[in-house]
Amino acid sequence: MSDKLLQDFLNGDTRALARVITLVENRSIESLPLLQELFPRAGKSTIIGVTGSPGSGKSTLVDRLAGAYRGESQEIAIVAVDPSSPFTGGAILGDRIRMQTQGVYIRSMATRGNLGGLATATADVVTVLDAAGKNPILVETVGVGQDEIDIVKLADVSIVVLVPGMGDDIQALKAGIMEIGDIFVINKCDRPGVEKMERAVLAMLSLAHRADGWQPPVIKTVATEGQGVAELQGAIRECYSFFQKSEHRKQKKHDDARQRLITLLEERLVSKAVQQVFPDGELNKVVQDIADRRRDPYSIVENIIQKSEFKV
Amino acid sequence: MSDKLLQDFLNGDTRALARVITLVENRSIESLPLLQELFPRAGKSTIIGVTGSPGSGKSTLVDRLAGAYRGESQEIAIVAVDPSSPFTGGAILGDRIRMQTQGVYIRSMATRGNLGGLATATADVVTVLDAAGKNPILVETVGVGQDEIDIVKLADVSIVVLVPGMGDDIQALKAGIMEIGDIFVINKCDRPGVEKMERAVLAMLSLAHRADGWQPPVIKTVATEGQGVAELQGAIRECYSFFQKSEHRKQKKHDDARQRLITLLEERLVSKAVQQVFPDGELNKVVQDIADRRRDPYSIVENIIQKSEFKV
Repeated sequence: MSDKLLQDFLNGDTRALARVITLVENRSIESLPLLQELFPRAGKSTIIGVTGSPGSGKSTLVDRLAGAYRGESQEIAIVAVDPSSPFTGGAILGDRIRMQTQGVYIRSMATRGNLGGLATATADVVTVLDAAGKNPILVETVGVGQDEIDIVKLADVSIVVLVPGMGDDIQALKAGIMEIGDIFVINKCDRPGVEKMERAVLAMLSLAHRADGWQPPVIKTVATEGQGVAELQGAIRECYSFFQKSEHRKQKKHDDARQRLITLLEERLVSKAVQQVFPDGELNKVVQDIADRRRDPYSIVENIIQKSEFKV
Repeated sequence: MSDKLLQDFLNGDTRALARVITLVENRSIESLPLLQELFPRAGKSTIIGVTGSPGSGKSTLVDRLAGAYRGESQEIAIVAVDPSSPFTGGAILGDRIRMQTQGVYIRSMATRGNLGGLATATADVVTVLDAAGKNPILVETVGVGQDEIDIVKLADVSIVVLVPGMGDDIQALKAGIMEIGDIFVINKCDRPGVEKMERAVLAMLSLAHRADGWQPPVIKTVATEGQGVAELQGAIRECYSFFQKSEHRKQKKHDDARQRLITLLEERLVSKAVQQVFPDGELNKVVQDIADRRRDPYSIVENIIQKSEFKV
């Protein structure tokens, strides 16, 4: 089954691609042999991360950017990541009707609340698309949380989308997305307040010390009109080639690989430990004992650690 | 050493408390036997989470609130959590000079970039303060990220601090802190735009469906003047007692306990596995192989999983 799926995938079958992504997104055990095969085939694509608050028009910008790359006759992918809200279960991005362009593969992802986390799942989905020859891969995410930061860290080039009129609140963004942006876009530049916003971004950038020496440019766009998209493409190209020569990027690749190994290990080890140590409903009983403070989690974990063995 | 420390701690020694917190915050192995002792002694305090963007005046509000509780002659603790920025390493909160009141124990925490994560460390620090008889414990955090959401989830009652003039950007907060607030505070109510802000919050709350049946109140404060603080205290009391009777809160306590067990297990298991499987510099070599795509992380993890055993 898996072999057939892999074969179809490698032959460029779009349904096989969709199926592999679903397995990977659901952290299915079936996905592991596939990922083992696909990981060495990946690493050739440019990953472009795009983040910004809801209402910044970043999805339109991403669609336009994809259209522009498509004009260079490339096979593009868009991964729209939508961390679920604690209340609604998310799917803001799913509500929107995306531009459907031939040759642009669009995939929405949402938090599943699983152990592994959204960033790991996204990294794996990007690996699959990368191995499928999609290039560039645009990863789009909402907001400023840790999940988003982890997701944007995947990218070779990270774009932060702002809009005029956010000026007073730029302070609030400072500790978050402002610092991970390689390129800043002020979208909706037909609105008032563009100069104020640009000054605020430049002021903030002048304070930031970037270890890699890259100077993030500020690009003005009106995504709905396609205005500024070519300039943004140029900035992405420039940034990408700057990073290719940078020593800091080599370190980043190393750190990313380490994080990926550790996170995968967490996910799989805990899952195995829980299965072996707590048969059937045992886990729920132990958890309730912790909730009622009849038992403490530290001793329970200590006990599992002492009983665990990793035969080298 | 640990026994003496524990004894001093239980005798109410403040330096022993500080030392225990440091061990816990650093995820020191020494902290485990202490946490095992302290966990069953905790669970008596009211944990109040306070979140809001930088500039919302939430620290002043927390200080005022602590002062008010102190007026009821209680031993208060404030934990100011400051997720580090990827660039600067954080410590925004540390820059500020806090009101120092007799009987209010203040502790700042920042992300260490360790495996366990800030939310776990904060949960453990709160357990220590709880066991030390601090009540209430005010946990203050910046922003809307996943870390913050995880931290605020620790709390019995969560307060979201807003300021007038944020109205247009409330949409951006929607998927984040708006949904975890049990009480909303509009601080700096001497500024224009209070009514607009209140309307925006109420409109959003009218859309949200809360499974627990609690109706979050909106409290107006001017923290610098102490205005509205007594009202806020009343709202906290009311909310707390509502939750005490709620079935949903029992489920929340269960889910929290489960999350805590799993996270601790992740942290300790991975640490043991890495130590046993990769002696000395071996890990770095493997990581570089992954970065260069000479090896894939899935096979490596699979191999560790197969070699692992949890003797039940």
